Amino acid sequence: RKRILITGGAGFVGSHLVDSLMMQGHEVTVVDNFFTGRKRNVEHWVGHENFEMLHHDIVNPLYIEVDQIYHLASPASPPNYMYNPIKTLKTNTLGTINMLGLAKRVRARLLLASTSEVYGDPELHPQNEDYWGHVNPIGPRACYDEGKRVAETMCYAYEKQENVEVRVARIFNTFGPRMHMNDGRVVSNFILQALQNESITVYGEGEQTRSFQYVSDLVDGLMLLMNSNFSQPVNLGNPEEHTIMEFAEIILSMVGGGSKIVKKTAMEDDPQRRKPDISRAMKYLGWKPMVPLKLGLNKTIAYFHNELRRSR
Amino acid sequence: RKRILITGGAGFVGSHLVDSLMMQGHEVTVVDNFFTGRKRNVEHWVGHENFEMLHHDIVNPLYIEVDQIYHLASPASPPNYMYNPIKTLKTNTLGTINMLGLAKRVRARLLLASTSEVYGDPELHPQNEDYWGHVNPIGPRACYDEGKRVAETMCYAYEKQENVEVRVARIFNTFGPRMHMNDGRVVSNFILQALQNESITVYGEGEQTRSFQYVSDLVDGLMLLMNSNFSQPVNLGNPEEHTIMEFAEIILSMVGGGSKIVKKTAMEDDPQRRKPDISRAMKYLGWKPMVPLKLGLNKTIAYFHNELRRSR
Ligand SMILES: NC(=O)c1ccc[n+]([C@@H]2O[C@H](COP(=O)([O-])OP(=O)(O)OC[C@H]3O[C@@H](n4cnc5c(N)ncnc54)[C@H](O)[C@@H]3O)[C@@H](O)[C@H]2O)c1
Ligand SMILES: NC(=O)c1ccc[n+]([C@@H]2O[C@H](COP(=O)([O-])OP(=O)(O)OC[C@H]3O[C@@H](n4cnc5c(N)ncnc54)[C@H](O)[C@@H]3O)[C@@H](O)[C@H]2O)c1
Ligand SMILES: O=c1ccn([C@@H]2O[C@H](COP(=O)(O)OP(=O)(O)O)[C@@H](O)[C@H]2O)c(=O)[nH]1
Ligand SMILES: O=c1ccn([C@@H]2O[C@H](COP(=O)(O)OP(=O)(O)O)[C@@H](O)[C@H]2O)c(=O)[nH]1
Ligand SMILES: O=c1ccn([C@@H]2O[C@H](COP(=O)(O)OP(=O)(O)O)[C@@H](O)[C@H]2O)c(=O)[nH]1
Ligand SMILES: O=c1ccn([C@@H]2O[C@H](COP(=O)(O)OP(=O)(O)O)[C@@H](O)[C@H]2O)c(=O)[nH]1
Repeated sequence: RKRILITGGAGFVGSHLVDSLMMQGHEVTVVDNFFTGRKRNVEHWVGHENFEMLHHDIVNPLYIEVDQIYHLASPASPPNYMYNPIKTLKTNTLGTINMLGLAKRVRARLLLASTSEVYGDPELHPQNEDYWGHVNPIGPRACYDEGKRVAETMCYAYEKQENVEVRVARIFNTFGPRMHMNDGRVVSNFILQALQNESITVYGEGEQTRSFQYVSDLVDGLMLLMNSNFSQPVNLGNPEEHTIMEFAEIILSMVGGGSKIVKKTAMEDDPQRRKPDISRAMKYLGWKPMVPLKLGLNKTIAYFHNELRRSR
Repeated sequence: RKRILITGGAGFVGSHLVDSLMMQGHEVTVVDNFFTGRKRNVEHWVGHENFEMLHHDIVNPLYIEVDQIYHLASPASPPNYMYNPIKTLKTNTLGTINMLGLAKRVRARLLLASTSEVYGDPELHPQNEDYWGHVNPIGPRACYDEGKRVAETMCYAYEKQENVEVRVARIFNTFGPRMHMNDGRVVSNFILQALQNESITVYGEGEQTRSFQYVSDLVDGLMLLMNSNFSQPVNLGNPEEHTIMEFAEIILSMVGGGSKIVKKTAMEDDPQRRKPDISRAMKYLGWKPMVPLKLGLNKTIAYFHNELRRSR
């Protein structure tokens, strides 16, 4: 039984991680500023003796005593991280320094939720962890991409210089219940559009690809990585690759209804292909995704169906 | 006549910039923590009514009133920035946020001294400003390279979101008097080795290239850029490219003496080719380097000759 801090624990991924760690009997502290997170995502644990929720912004120092830190706090979807680029940068730089300073003081192990965006618009396919990436340092996505890249750099600097134990997960696109309705990610957009008989908005020609993992697979991978002996970056994602147009068609056929697929302007610097090489996760963590796409989509569609009913 | 702040103004480049701006009659404030800078570099201005020297570390906030900020504070040579990677990262992230916060509050224009290292080990040759670079985010040089990349990202985030006026100079290798004797850069190493009849240490086969500009050319470029209307990144460097082996031979022949050239182990992730495309600087600033390599080397050799005498 460990004392575990989850920054961003009221968010989409964080709240699922809270569920798994609480179920394992750990003491869990969530730190969140509720920028995109919601109390509702973790409210079923409020009042449990092993659970604590701190309303706190990690750009400010934090003094608590813990054994492990899952460092997830960061705006995560393009509309959210572009909403306030300065804050995105401060969270990923100041915020990460603060969490590494905390890890250093209390000798905790820190896992950084990094991202496939460190590979940018990749020229290598699929992407393995040795790839240095192709990122525009001054483009519209840079606040997030460069923020996460330098957060990784910081982790290894604290590892080398202060012997802080670090783990770095490069997370590929993830979906599931508790995704935000309005954060503009493709899965939530398409499902909501289909459920409401609105047009399904494909940005550009829809030939760009993504590879989506279901959130429970990711949470398993994060816990395996945290408790492994492997300190280099590890890709966590589902290698099943689809074009965005295919996603639109799959979701439309699963939801049914009369939506039309329409093409909108392409996003600036939108990565054209993305698919993880997960050999490293398989080799060092014995991990691979288990949930088939359609099963995950079914659960997610059911979730959004309920959310729409609630909000009426 | 302007009130001008120079962070890192007691360093090599900064102190030459102080000289030029003081000579133009501006009020100049230097902020430096003396990590690699020296009081001696600016001591000829101490006591002048337009000059002020603040012993201050920019990872802490700074409240003064100025019109322009030349933001140069950062360890700059590989041995210096690898000496304390955490501090290098804090200086380039926290320090840059502080200077941008200052610029925002007092409505000053800020020029960031960025670097050709944002291009990493480039796959495009020569490098122009649209190239996204090839940087290892977790390699030994990352604390500097990623620190400077995200510092650029921060500049454009403050420009877009807070209307801070920013200028970004991507500085290529520079040499001249007041380079540090012991910071391990190739020009200082080779000159000192030749002057002392020691072996000239070429790392690797010496086939890697660099393009060196003389410091007075750089200072002219920085001032032109600061006062221009151009806010995108601008390369400042001399496109005359030489292999490191050629540098060894040129310097040996100019200094004379009996040194031998010896090959040492190559540096990890050492960029193999580097040469600026300076079309942008020529077009928007009307700038190009004027000082021939050998003239610059002569002045630098004379400087180190004197330094060696002083230190005896
Ligand atoms: N979901 C994905 O597809 C995906 C892909 C790659 C990486 N990631 C990473 O995983 C992590 C979690 O992502 P998510 O999808 O759950 O997003 P999310 O927006 O649901 O969760 C992020 C949480 O961090 C909180 N937060 C943001 N800034 C904060 C600050 N300054 N102080 C305290 N809390 C703050 C938010 O309120 C939110 O609860 C993020 O770091 C993200 O970059 C997610
Ligand atoms: N010289 C080059 O070839 C070159 C090439 C590319 C970029 N640059 C950039 O130009 C700038 C100046 O480089 P330089 O060659 O004069 O190096 P330098 O080491 O001589 O100067 C840097 C100065 O910054 C000061 N400093 C460092 N950290 C500080 C902190 N936290 N607070 C306050 N002061 C701090 C140092 O004491 C020093 O005086 C740097 O930003 C460097 O990255 C230089
Ligand atoms: O328990 C702690 C210890 C440190 N920090 C923050 O982490 C930063 C980096 O820590 P580090 O030890 O590197 O820095 P220092 O204390 O030397 O500034 C500090 O500045 C604090 O803001 C924190 O939030 N909690
Ligand atoms: O309504 C939408 C939302 C997104 N996308 C595209 O779907 C892909 C994934 O976008 P998302 O924002 O989900 O994630 P990321 O770009 O961060 O992978 C990108 O190519 C987007 O341009 C789309 O076509 N329509
Ligand atoms: O005159 C100033 C104004 C701000 N800052 C620093 O710059 C940072 C970023 O400024 P910004 O306005 O973005 O942030 P905020 O004040 O909202 O934290 C602040 O946190 C301060 O530490 C400074 O050093 N001098
Ligand atoms: O004593 C030395 C110092 C440097 N170098 C090489 O010279 C080049 C320039 O090194 P420097 O540290 O001056 O600058 P940077 O690598 O930042 O361009 C690199 O390829 C180094 O490996 C060398 O051969 N011998």
